Amino acid sequence: MTRTVVESKTKTAVLGFDEPFCVIGERINPTGRKKLAAELEAGDFSTVEKDAIAQVAAGATVLDINAGVVYNSNPNPNETEPPLMTKIVELVQGLVDVPLCIDSSVPGALEAGLEAAEGRPLLNSVTGEEERLELVLPLVKKYNVPVVAISNDDTGISEDPDVRFAVAKTIVERAADYGIPAHDIVVDPLVMPIGAMATAGQQVFALVRRLREELGVNTTCGASNISFGLPNRHGINNAFLPMAMGAGMTSAIMNPVALPVGPKKLAEKKAEVEAKGIVLPADMDDETFCQLFGLGSTQPRAGKEMEAIRAANLLTNNDPHGGAWIKFNKSPEEAAAAGGAGGRRGGGRRRRA
Amino acid sequence: MTRTVVESKTKTAVLGFDEPFCVIGERINPTGRKKLAAELEAGDFSTVEKDAIAQVAAGATVLDINAGVVYNSNPNPNETEPPLMTKIVELVQGLVDVPLCIDSSVPGALEAGLEAAEGRPLLNSVTGEEERLELVLPLVKKYNVPVVAISNDDTGISEDPDVRFAVAKTIVERAADYGIPAHDIVVDPLVMPIGAMATAGQQVFALVRRLREELGVNTTCGASNISFGLPNRHGINNAFLPMAMGAGMTSAIMNPVALPVGPKKLAEKKAEVEAKGIVLPADMDDETFCQLFGLGSTQPRAGKEMEAIRAANLLTNNDPHGGAWIKFNKSPEEAAAAGGAGGRRGGGRRRRA
Repeated sequence: MTRTVVESKTKTAVLGFDEPFCVIGERINPTGRKKLAAELEAGDFSTVEKDAIAQVAAGATVLDINAGVVYNSNPNPNETEPPLMTKIVELVQGLVDVPLCIDSSVPGALEAGLEAAEGRPLLNSVTGEEERLELVLPLVKKYNVPVVAISNDDTGISEDPDVRFAVAKTIVERAADYGIPAHDIVVDPLVMPIGAMATAGQQVFALVRRLREELGVNTTCGASNISFGLPNRHGINNAFLPMAMGAGMTSAIMNPVALPVGPKKLAEKKAEVEAKGIVLPADMDDETFCQLFGLGSTQPRAGKEMEAIRAANLLTNNDPHGGAWIKFNKSPEEAAAAGGAGGRRGGGRRRRA
Repeated sequence: MTRTVVESKTKTAVLGFDEPFCVIGERINPTGRKKLAAELEAGDFSTVEKDAIAQVAAGATVLDINAGVVYNSNPNPNETEPPLMTKIVELVQGLVDVPLCIDSSVPGALEAGLEAAEGRPLLNSVTGEEERLELVLPLVKKYNVPVVAISNDDTGISEDPDVRFAVAKTIVERAADYGIPAHDIVVDPLVMPIGAMATAGQQVFALVRRLREELGVNTTCGASNISFGLPNRHGINNAFLPMAMGAGMTSAIMNPVALPVGPKKLAEKKAEVEAKGIVLPADMDDETFCQLFGLGSTQPRAGKEMEAIRAANLLTNNDPHGGAWIKFNKSPEEAAAAGGAGGRRGGGRRRRA
């Protein structure tokens, strides 16, 4: 049985066909987050701290750490990224106890992360590109860690799933040459946007099944890619994740957190409410307002994708007797009455019959 | 390619591996609905009318008609059910144009429904029970209609999926003896509650795959059985349906409608709101209240399961270019601006980015 073991100093996350789905929180990543990038350059780690705590509270069992910021003051990431990686890894493992995923395209940052991480982190990532294979596989061997293998190579990303399967197979074989076992390779078969490629879903489901049956490897993906460019992305993601799990996908790199309601949305809703002639008490706090008006919460909480994943865990027999499902669906009040042992975090959602 | 064709006088619904999922609306059924049963005995068809219209508006492409009420005035359904079936079939096909599914355990009611239905209805159902096979298959042949085949037999419902597969195979073979082709058999592999049987999901997914690959038949199920007895049933159903579709399920007998917000829930919410010091205008109508406070709607509308199914249609490449998905996610205002051509019915839900 294929088991990929990822560890922090005190906690273990196992990827496997008979394990609950492994949610790898993707938020600690400045790529495409200009505000976070500027904060990091200024030495402000408050967003990283918040993201670490919120993602674990929402149900992430591994946190991805990417320090890929290009400083205005120094455009050479080979110089700036390794020390930033060290700093963030140390910070995050001081705050939360889940295992980490060290994510970089910069070799020095990968090694810095591996040095700083306690336990057995997941390395993200190797590809089928020759240079990358020769660079990353020795690190995987040296540190005895599992690695994400992305199925593109020197020819790029193929739209042909058979080619992507062949690339994954090559990586597994090359790893074996280094003495790295298949159960330490977590293949990302690459999820294309369904809006651009109508067969993108079918490709992933078929690839995951083959990777599991023929190579015996665990799999992961950047789940939200599937819905890129389409309306109601959550609606698509919420169906994609259970379908991928049904095909045998064992983890995803994703955002487990529903974004909190921000000041702009709050102001819009208050204006809408007042335009209808409703009079609010002067001292009503924003959180009470959000909950009463069905807006969500001013605090981060588990996103709908986490509900879909927990339901799919139940349906793949990775939540026997439904214990995790029942706990997840307790209201905060019920959870508190049961000793604060569970419940959806930070929300006022009611259990439905 | 397996295509099961169901027709009304003017519309065709096709079950097939390369077709959007076929949603068979289950609401017109007095079983377990005491109020509806009493109405039917009293000759009141208003609920039937509302259920027919709401289910089609929510996206059902076939409507199940079950007239299985036991009258207080006459406890013999062999006498009362056939004329009631005729009446409901005639009523419903005067109101909506989708094909029907004639659903009864009473032989006379099946034949009455087949006589009354225009086009090519689906018959619900035959089982592997000897008496039922001999009764129903001649009707299927005589009226040249497709039939739902439930995989239990004279020994009952087996918990062993191999036995249920064997029962389905027997029904397909017995049908062939009558000259009924496999593409006119829609197998229900029987969905057990996941709360009672931890392998219930895996069983269905594996069975659907085998039924498709080995017998080449379409499949259906009573989808909500899966979540029986557990909290947040919709959360489970919303994951189950895409997973079943990923495995090859081509239809379900289900409720496509989200129940409207009733007077009790409205009163509770108003009391909660007023207890927080909010002053509502005296002339605020209930629908505006529901929408502002995120309660849903006083009108029936498409349930969350329909969103899950439409997303899964996209992900199985049965909504190429996402046309149906984009239309489904237009707000009512956008849909109206585009000529009233689509949009979620009866709701004020916003498209999310």
